[in-house]
Amino acid sequence: MPLPATMRPSAGKLTIDSSFKASLSGTPDARLEAALARFTAQLSRQTGIPMFANKDAAARLRVECASPGGEAPKLGENEAYTLDVTADGATLKAPGRAGVLHGLATFAQLVTLGDQGYEVAAVHIEDQPRFAWRGLMLDSARHFMPLAVVKRNLDAMAAVKLNVFHWHLSEDQGFRVESKRYPKLHEQGSDGMFYTQAEIRDIVAYASDRGIRVVPEFDIPGHTTAWMVGYPELGTNPGPYEIGRKWGVYENALDPSREETYTFLDNFFEEITPLFPDLYFHIGGDEVVAKQWNASARVQAWAKEHNLKDAHAIQAYFNTRVQKLLQKRGKVLIGWDEVLHPDLPTDIVVQSWRGQKSLAEAATKGYRGILSWGYYLDHLSPAKFHYRVDPMSGDADRLTPEQAARILGGEACMWAEYTTSETVDSRIWPRAAAIAERLWSPAATVDVESMYARMAVVSRELEWTGVQHRANYAPMLDRMTGGAPVEPLRVLADAVEGLGLSPRARAAKYTSLTPMNRMADAARPESESVYALELAAAKVAADPKGSTAEAAALRTAFTRWAANDARFQELAAGNPLLAELKPVSKDLAALGNAGLALLDGKSAPDGFAAELTRMERPNAELSLAATRPVKILMNAGRK
Amino acid sequence: MPLPATMRPSAGKLTIDSSFKASLSGTPDARLEAALARFTAQLSRQTGIPMFANKDAAARLRVECASPGGEAPKLGENEAYTLDVTADGATLKAPGRAGVLHGLATFAQLVTLGDQGYEVAAVHIEDQPRFAWRGLMLDSARHFMPLAVVKRNLDAMAAVKLNVFHWHLSEDQGFRVESKRYPKLHEQGSDGMFYTQAEIRDIVAYASDRGIRVVPEFDIPGHTTAWMVGYPELGTNPGPYEIGRKWGVYENALDPSREETYTFLDNFFEEITPLFPDLYFHIGGDEVVAKQWNASARVQAWAKEHNLKDAHAIQAYFNTRVQKLLQKRGKVLIGWDEVLHPDLPTDIVVQSWRGQKSLAEAATKGYRGILSWGYYLDHLSPAKFHYRVDPMSGDADRLTPEQAARILGGEACMWAEYTTSETVDSRIWPRAAAIAERLWSPAATVDVESMYARMAVVSRELEWTGVQHRANYAPMLDRMTGGAPVEPLRVLADAVEGLGLSPRARAAKYTSLTPMNRMADAARPESESVYALELAAAKVAADPKGSTAEAAALRTAFTRWAANDARFQELAAGNPLLAELKPVSKDLAALGNAGLALLDGKSAPDGFAAELTRMERPNAELSLAATRPVKILMNAGRK
Repeated sequence: MPLPATMRPSAGKLTIDSSFKASLSGTPDARLEAALARFTAQLSRQTGIPMFANKDAAARLRVECASPGGEAPKLGENEAYTLDVTADGATLKAPGRAGVLHGLATFAQLVTLGDQGYEVAAVHIEDQPRFAWRGLMLDSARHFMPLAVVKRNLDAMAAVKLNVFHWHLSEDQGFRVESKRYPKLHEQGSDGMFYTQAEIRDIVAYASDRGIRVVPEFDIPGHTTAWMVGYPELGTNPGPYEIGRKWGVYENALDPSREETYTFLDNFFEEITPLFPDLYFHIGGDEVVAKQWNASARVQAWAKEHNLKDAHAIQAYFNTRVQKLLQKRGKVLIGWDEVLHPDLPTDIVVQSWRGQKSLAEAATKGYRGILSWGYYLDHLSPAKFHYRVDPMSGDADRLTPEQAARILGGEACMWAEYTTSETVDSRIWPRAAAIAERLWSPAATVDVESMYARMAVVSRELEWTGVQHRANYAPMLDRMTGGAPVEPLRVLADAVEGLGLSPRARAAKYTSLTPMNRMADAARPESESVYALELAAAKVAADPKGSTAEAAALRTAFTRWAANDARFQELAAGNPLLAELKPVSKDLAALGNAGLALLDGKSAPDGFAAELTRMERPNAELSLAATRPVKILMNAGRK
Repeated sequence: MPLPATMRPSAGKLTIDSSFKASLSGTPDARLEAALARFTAQLSRQTGIPMFANKDAAARLRVECASPGGEAPKLGENEAYTLDVTADGATLKAPGRAGVLHGLATFAQLVTLGDQGYEVAAVHIEDQPRFAWRGLMLDSARHFMPLAVVKRNLDAMAAVKLNVFHWHLSEDQGFRVESKRYPKLHEQGSDGMFYTQAEIRDIVAYASDRGIRVVPEFDIPGHTTAWMVGYPELGTNPGPYEIGRKWGVYENALDPSREETYTFLDNFFEEITPLFPDLYFHIGGDEVVAKQWNASARVQAWAKEHNLKDAHAIQAYFNTRVQKLLQKRGKVLIGWDEVLHPDLPTDIVVQSWRGQKSLAEAATKGYRGILSWGYYLDHLSPAKFHYRVDPMSGDADRLTPEQAARILGGEACMWAEYTTSETVDSRIWPRAAAIAERLWSPAATVDVESMYARMAVVSRELEWTGVQHRANYAPMLDRMTGGAPVEPLRVLADAVEGLGLSPRARAAKYTSLTPMNRMADAARPESESVYALELAAAKVAADPKGSTAEAAALRTAFTRWAANDARFQELAAGNPLLAELKPVSKDLAALGNAGLALLDGKSAPDGFAAELTRMERPNAELSLAATRPVKILMNAGRK
């Protein structure tokens, strides 16, 4: 995953043992040598077999790279590769470094446990991406994400062939980059949680080694409260400003009417742009609230003078100025939908959070664009929802080929209001892998069941890249029990799913100081075990007599749910982190009992349908996923 | 854990929330400020509550350090502290930096989940260590341990107040330090897996920040094959030499008869000793095989010339020379038992792997010593075994106070033949915490059941330091199933225990290239869940009628064991990593059935006692821990 463009299995298999070795031919390239070493180390973790530079071993995997190319990955570079695996060995050929990296990622996924040990089944693969821009945006501003979190996510990105790391670095709630020119930005705007310039360079190099471009985002002129804590003169209002603690859209915006604002940005870009070698530089530009501009006599007088009739025109003026500042440093501006305005040159890139329509509109007007609407990971939607969003569907369908070519790809977005460094991996993975497949694989790759089956495998394998999306679960549950045996909590946790931004924002007044230690934080966005039960329930519903194994699996789960509540209530007594879960646990028990009745061919208890509808609504900022398989059985019974 | 010297609970409790802040008074000290920041960050992980430098909050924990002291921690420094917690706040006072670090570690352990949220119960603690030398030895040579592994173990050491990191850096199987003077040491002796000098400095600084001394070990004159791969002239035999792949004691030894050997060591020490600021420098000196020395005409002629009557005398001569080389660089020699010889000055330190007798003998002769016999973690003995070993018991009992004062403490030893970076944390933790308590807490702290109860809590809390002793379990089981549902394997895994060096060495021909991906690697040294069942079984045996909860817990476990085999056998079909476990799973089912019969007041099946004896023997390099609770019930039935 992502599924290769073409893949032809053949007979035989290549054995993987401690004599495994990969060798490089073609132009010598230190980065590729390092990539091979990392690849071997990962294979070693994945199999538990020690592997290291074994000088005497013959190479089992021969890598031929025609021309490794320049220092850093670039938009539009050739990412193709071919991979041939036979019983005697494997050959990976690619025109450039990117293809080699992708081919190694594919090879790692092909390694399976056979009945003789680890092996790769013989295959011929020819592969290249459908879209050139396949990104993950990480918000390091709402909650700070330590370096280690960023690095392990870069490794996971590389494993599923994502090639753009869009790094959201400033917000109302935090300014996360060290500035030597304007030190009060990070000193006063970050609560001490920022990346030094050396760390930024380290991350950029780390990403580059993995074939990943880094596109920084400094969101202006809105989302800028943290800038103004140290430099209130940047703001439209006089200030003073404090670091934002609440979520939501702030009214604060840079003052577009003062020349000093542009001088500040000019100096800031002079300092910061060299840290990020990529051509593209993101200025955000989203959700600018007009209120302060409209209320400011100074801004209004200035706008009148410049014939700027409204806030949108003011922002376009601002963006035009910013675009020129970036252009003189060789950078191309990228921004969210709102930056789209005829005054801006068509070489800018528009990132659409509003939808495919807005993306298509940009393409029609000659702008290049990427899609992020439909790829918001922080909504905690199921993978299939994201998987079904195609940048070329909807309004993009009607574009001319020339216009369609302007749609460069897409980006999964991980906004960080409701996640911390502890939980963020589990909010990104494995669902981002489904988006990665959408952006890499042929458009016809749309089978959802196949996607889920492969995603479950990839989710396990991502463990070996270091992301903690599975590993964080047990410690968080352990924490919640305060030392008591965790099993009843785990049964419940496996049956629920976390909810995303909107329901959480509705449920409680969150700030950046709110603990993120509840079930809503520990629970996965999508329950793997409930998904398996849904498949089983669908089979039982379709063929009750022929699905004995599925019925048995359902019976085991339902019995466990039914029996769990007594143990859970005992565990939850006097525990403030578990109190809100008591009714959820009761509901789970009721679902278990109803499921058992349905399996036995009885009908569900009286009034259960209404109960089920109630249970489907959020409770304790959770969705009770366990309703789904029971509902399938109930609906089947009705026919 | 370790239990403080004195501890007086009182009424009330201190609430821990996002306004928590610690402040420092007394002499300003950047290291302590950093320690406070780390402490707050860990508290934040432990509770899931965001905490960061909140300038406005009043300090809930006031830290007063009389005199932070010099750059690095030192043997014998004052490590005492007092900690007062009341509902209004806490005060930590210490004469030096070490005491502050220990007090913070204690405070972190006192944070519990109460019915209103996180809190610390009011208490007054006065604490100081029983022994000044409380170490963990890590073998980074047999299997290489990456930097991240070392760092997270240093964090865990600090959490249980261990203060010496003894770093075993060279072996027959690998030379792990970059040498600029003799680059073939690491280039040809390490398979590319070594620490650069910058990395060494980084680790030493990291340890020092956490109050931990780093004592490097370069084992000479035996255990030196890896040195001779690049420099065969160092060897007694002409070579050539290859990096050792097998375990066990090698015959290769440095040539003591050539002056060039000492020149080499002199230059080597000149380069390496400045990397390690600690006063003590470990030269190993263990297990020197006399064979090559005895067979070498050159060595024999030289020995006769120098009146060295046997290999022991030769080694003493060698050590005396080495001791002088170290002394001229301000270092004090430390070595294993074998270095003990009247020709060596009494300022050297002897580390006893042979036993308390050998330690006491050294103390009688005026040498200082530390105990490691009884603390070999790689034997995978139960924590209670280590816990019962006291450096001052046995022969040390008869020492005069002056002699007894020469026993500085002890070190847990983690030899790495049968562990890799993936499993090493689970071989060290939580059992090393029991050794840490033995070395810190008053001699009267000997209640094993209390130790186990506290160790289980500490084991969970160590998660937040980053060690992977619990987190590595699930991915390893996932790997073994090759993608199939893991639960039947987990039931089995929870019921078995890994075996240590001797049984594994007897079971198969291991080399450094052998995969470490089997159940013997994933299984814990001690099963927490079986221990809980043992306690339950003991209660049921003592009071069958009054132990209904315990009987129910046993019934649940026995039922699960009995039912697990069918599912396990299905999972194991065609899986080479699970094949060896098929009979173990059958035995577990038999134990479950016998346990159920015993609970029902029936007798165990005919011949079961003999079966049980068979099951207690190692199988698949595992111990079937599940035998223990069943045996308790069976023996109770016999009375």
